[in-house]
Amino acid sequence: MQFIIVADDGRARAGLLKTPHGEIHTPQFMPVGTQGSVKTMTPEELRGMGAEMILGNTYHLYLRPGDETIKRLGGLHRFINWPGPILTDSGGFQVYSLSRLRRITDDGVEFQSHIDGSTHFLSPERSIEIQENLGADIIMAFDECIPYPADYEYALDAVKRTAQWAVRCIRARKRKDQYLFGINQGGMYRELRRMSIEELISFGFDGHATGGLSVGEPKGLMHEMIHFTASLLPAEKPRYLMGIGDLIDVVEAVEAGYDLFDCVMPTRNARNGTLFTSQGRVSIKRAEFRDDPSPLDPLCNCYTCMHYTRAYLRHLFLAGEILSMRLNTIHNLSFYMNFFREMRRAILEKRFQQFKRDWLDILRNNSTRNNLQ
Amino acid sequence: MQFIIVADDGRARAGLLKTPHGEIHTPQFMPVGTQGSVKTMTPEELRGMGAEMILGNTYHLYLRPGDETIKRLGGLHRFINWPGPILTDSGGFQVYSLSRLRRITDDGVEFQSHIDGSTHFLSPERSIEIQENLGADIIMAFDECIPYPADYEYALDAVKRTAQWAVRCIRARKRKDQYLFGINQGGMYRELRRMSIEELISFGFDGHATGGLSVGEPKGLMHEMIHFTASLLPAEKPRYLMGIGDLIDVVEAVEAGYDLFDCVMPTRNARNGTLFTSQGRVSIKRAEFRDDPSPLDPLCNCYTCMHYTRAYLRHLFLAGEILSMRLNTIHNLSFYMNFFREMRRAILEKRFQQFKRDWLDILRNNSTRNNLQ
Repeated sequence: MQFIIVADDGRARAGLLKTPHGEIHTPQFMPVGTQGSVKTMTPEELRGMGAEMILGNTYHLYLRPGDETIKRLGGLHRFINWPGPILTDSGGFQVYSLSRLRRITDDGVEFQSHIDGSTHFLSPERSIEIQENLGADIIMAFDECIPYPADYEYALDAVKRTAQWAVRCIRARKRKDQYLFGINQGGMYRELRRMSIEELISFGFDGHATGGLSVGEPKGLMHEMIHFTASLLPAEKPRYLMGIGDLIDVVEAVEAGYDLFDCVMPTRNARNGTLFTSQGRVSIKRAEFRDDPSPLDPLCNCYTCMHYTRAYLRHLFLAGEILSMRLNTIHNLSFYMNFFREMRRAILEKRFQQFKRDWLDILRNNSTRNNLQ
Repeated sequence: MQFIIVADDGRARAGLLKTPHGEIHTPQFMPVGTQGSVKTMTPEELRGMGAEMILGNTYHLYLRPGDETIKRLGGLHRFINWPGPILTDSGGFQVYSLSRLRRITDDGVEFQSHIDGSTHFLSPERSIEIQENLGADIIMAFDECIPYPADYEYALDAVKRTAQWAVRCIRARKRKDQYLFGINQGGMYRELRRMSIEELISFGFDGHATGGLSVGEPKGLMHEMIHFTASLLPAEKPRYLMGIGDLIDVVEAVEAGYDLFDCVMPTRNARNGTLFTSQGRVSIKRAEFRDDPSPLDPLCNCYTCMHYTRAYLRHLFLAGEILSMRLNTIHNLSFYMNFFREMRRAILEKRFQQFKRDWLDILRNNSTRNNLQ
């Protein structure tokens, strides 16, 4: 694993992760390209806003167009025309959240496709095989997600199964040019998280991910688990906090020592007309934007803010124009990429706590004040 | 009117039309920006494929966001960030085709918005006022469209009313920096088309448009009317054939001496997965594209064909990804802009008949052969 910690500030760290398709500056945010496309965006646009690595969903790509098809076409990078690093998840999370679940056994999971109801089977071995066909730079071990709340016995079983499956994932690997990350589970039980992490560490993964957070638990509990898990994960390997993208949580996790993040929040919110700005969160539908000739965020230099007014963005959204989703996505992703770059710079300059204080004021005021000037 | 005929070949002509926002090389195709956006595209992308002028719909922009709003925000060019020439239609066609019509009188048309059912009134004077607020380079007289089939008396009445309304449009004009085009009607009656055109000519419009074709009549009849109307329209002024974009019809109309065209066909078909290629029309859904690593059209150098495979385009379409609509629109519009540029070059080089023969073979084979290699 080529991962260098360039600087730290408290437990927060700035790193450099080298992959076959390029370097990743951590902390780094991965835009989500669920079905082989970061919704509405071209690769050039993603590159242009500084995105270094994107995420592809194994569950979706396996069902459509199929991993064999993607393999025949030269792998996922080539298929989607993305030259940089890619991470694929294991398929586990979507199997539990999207498909009609048939049966979980120690062997694997039988499920029905959310597209056509057809029956499929995913196991540690199949997940690795699919991810090797896709050919991402970082692939994930197949885990069992735990809902919230979950009782201790249930969570313990899932932790044990996740450990057994982790070993089978390592054994199933054929390619040596992909990093394999393990995923710890354990719900909100510190004891189980510790057990899960210790087992995974002993297996020698290239990096470590924490799954099963932001599944409905209170924020305080989530932040507690973020700090607790980070403190147990080996410092010399990359730490990936899966699926968490609310920037309040991200700042907490970076402070705790996490390096990698992914979330559909900036892209999904963009399509729904909710935009992130230096003044807080804004709904583009607001009536007061009707005649407003100013850019969405006067402090932002993304393509959208450099070329369009709030009035036009509001009009496009209300008219249901596809360009609305594009321009909003460009803005939200640019905002995220800028936020992460500034967070990294704050670590390099040993002023992460100041960064955190400044931003928490803005981020927390989102829901109450919302006074974009 | 600054319109120069640079070259001709038979009745086909290559022209140069100067407007406050730039020059237009004719024959020219105008992508349709119905609600202030050529669906899925940015202005830069349109420019990049050689689009010179776009069309905005008065009916839509009047209803949402409102012409007063657009005027306050600096006019349509500035509102939508399109620096080149714009043409707006009069609103007439959409009033008849989209809204719930309430009442046509000599005064104007009362109708209900297709958005919220609210009642509105459009007259020659209102149409000009709205179009002056929008501020396009070319604006259109308010006409009465005639359905097909229509009996002679009905068509005669509409022709008379269109002439009366044309005079009122001219009288209502305040701005002198916009060209105003008259629209001839008459259904499929040569006698009425002649009457309509002769009246409009006498009013001294800056250019002439033919409306009310491609409304359900047989192709042969449409082509006959295209040639007949073109032969009556003054040669020294631009001729605009409204709403016709099937390339077989376009070639016929350019041969007859038409200069300007608009149609939703390339953009709407793109979103539906129907693509125009040098080998004919193609549905991107085709099963044989599943593993096809070649570009959609090997002879095309648009962004889509230079970066993506048929397999990926098929996948994006089946997955319902917005990027599918973008990439397909880029291709179809690029194909149209290239087609028009080549048509113009053929006129300049006095080989339009050869161009027509070559292309008609391809265009006619669309529905039968469809063998994209």
